[in-house]
Amino acid sequence: MIPILSIVGKSDSGKTTLIEKLLPELTRRGYRIATVKHDIHGFEVDREGKDSWRHKQAGAHSVVISSPTKAALIRDVERDMNLEEIREKLIRDVDLILSEGYKKDVQPKVEVFRKEKHKKLLCTKKDNLVAIASNRKFRVGVPCFGLEDTNGLADFIEKEFLKLKEEKEISLRVNGKPIPMTPFVRDFLTGTVRGMVSALKGCEKSERIEIYIEDEGR
Amino acid sequence: MIPILSIVGKSDSGKTTLIEKLLPELTRRGYRIATVKHDIHGFEVDREGKDSWRHKQAGAHSVVISSPTKAALIRDVERDMNLEEIREKLIRDVDLILSEGYKKDVQPKVEVFRKEKHKKLLCTKKDNLVAIASNRKFRVGVPCFGLEDTNGLADFIEKEFLKLKEEKEISLRVNGKPIPMTPFVRDFLTGTVRGMVSALKGCEKSERIEIYIEDEGR
Repeated sequence: MIPILSIVGKSDSGKTTLIEKLLPELTRRGYRIATVKHDIHGFEVDREGKDSWRHKQAGAHSVVISSPTKAALIRDVERDMNLEEIREKLIRDVDLILSEGYKKDVQPKVEVFRKEKHKKLLCTKKDNLVAIASNRKFRVGVPCFGLEDTNGLADFIEKEFLKLKEEKEISLRVNGKPIPMTPFVRDFLTGTVRGMVSALKGCEKSERIEIYIEDEGR
Repeated sequence: MIPILSIVGKSDSGKTTLIEKLLPELTRRGYRIATVKHDIHGFEVDREGKDSWRHKQAGAHSVVISSPTKAALIRDVERDMNLEEIREKLIRDVDLILSEGYKKDVQPKVEVFRKEKHKKLLCTKKDNLVAIASNRKFRVGVPCFGLEDTNGLADFIEKEFLKLKEEKEISLRVNGKPIPMTPFVRDFLTGTVRGMVSALKGCEKSERIEIYIEDEGR
């Protein structure tokens, strides 16, 4: 599961600027990062008259434009998605998701704070605040990094969110809902599945197993 | 698995126009459709100076813009994706994928042909041609619909690609590769998994089961 971290802060606190500093540093360290930005005003992502624009106008739910170096997707949604839904429906092939904003979401947060702009923090530890980037010090039980200390914040993010790669990941969803498992059930299920699968030709070394079973509908 | 159908044809044969007619008809019948268009020249999908544009410039692998009615994703890819990869990495929540073009892909194809424009068909049954939309008749072993017969073509698509919803769907991927299974192995695997899962609380009625097991890396 790709970890999610939100960069939050009051307006004009410098969220985009912080993300602009973090991205090259994390990329330099070898990580692939996705960013998420909420846009309540809607947005324009395609040009009038282009084929893909014509598809969308004619009623396509989703439109993909694919090229040898990048791909774009524009799709309808029924309601505002939370970050977990965005991860599930849109994001693949990255190591970390950084959202700009999403202060009401449950995901862990770094708050950007500039003493010239505001008096009080937006978040507390109850909001899942895990760090602060600011030009003043706070003693609220989470690490506080200087606004220019991109390296320090990147170290923190790497340690807390990116070094979990060695961990085993097991998930079970039934009818689309994640099912929590006790360690016993998890070991029993994975042991049995691994055992069965390893008997199949070409599956002797199964680092990753995905099974999809569906009866009807989709 | 979402079915894929390609609308192919020589240049200027009317591929986009045919898709523009099919989309409202299939949508009216209650289906959600994704379209895919290849763009070898690259494309512009965001505006200079916007926050999401700044994220991409700063090195984000993927950028998501989310609103209450639509969402957009722009992401890097390492090479041109085939339609199966596009389905896996980008498309969710639709009933059918219609590509414009992709004549070299293995997916089933409808060829659009205008007698004023060209002399010979682009595809044969060997290319997985399943139907023709044209203002002349062809006898090449596949159904041939008039260019204005949107209803007839939509009936054909509905029957061949959309009415399979009742079918069972079972898939097993190991290390990302789909593993073919004999009926015996499939029944053994799904029976065992179903049996185990049905013993878990809240999983008595499991229409859809997804299991993900990973050891290391992602």
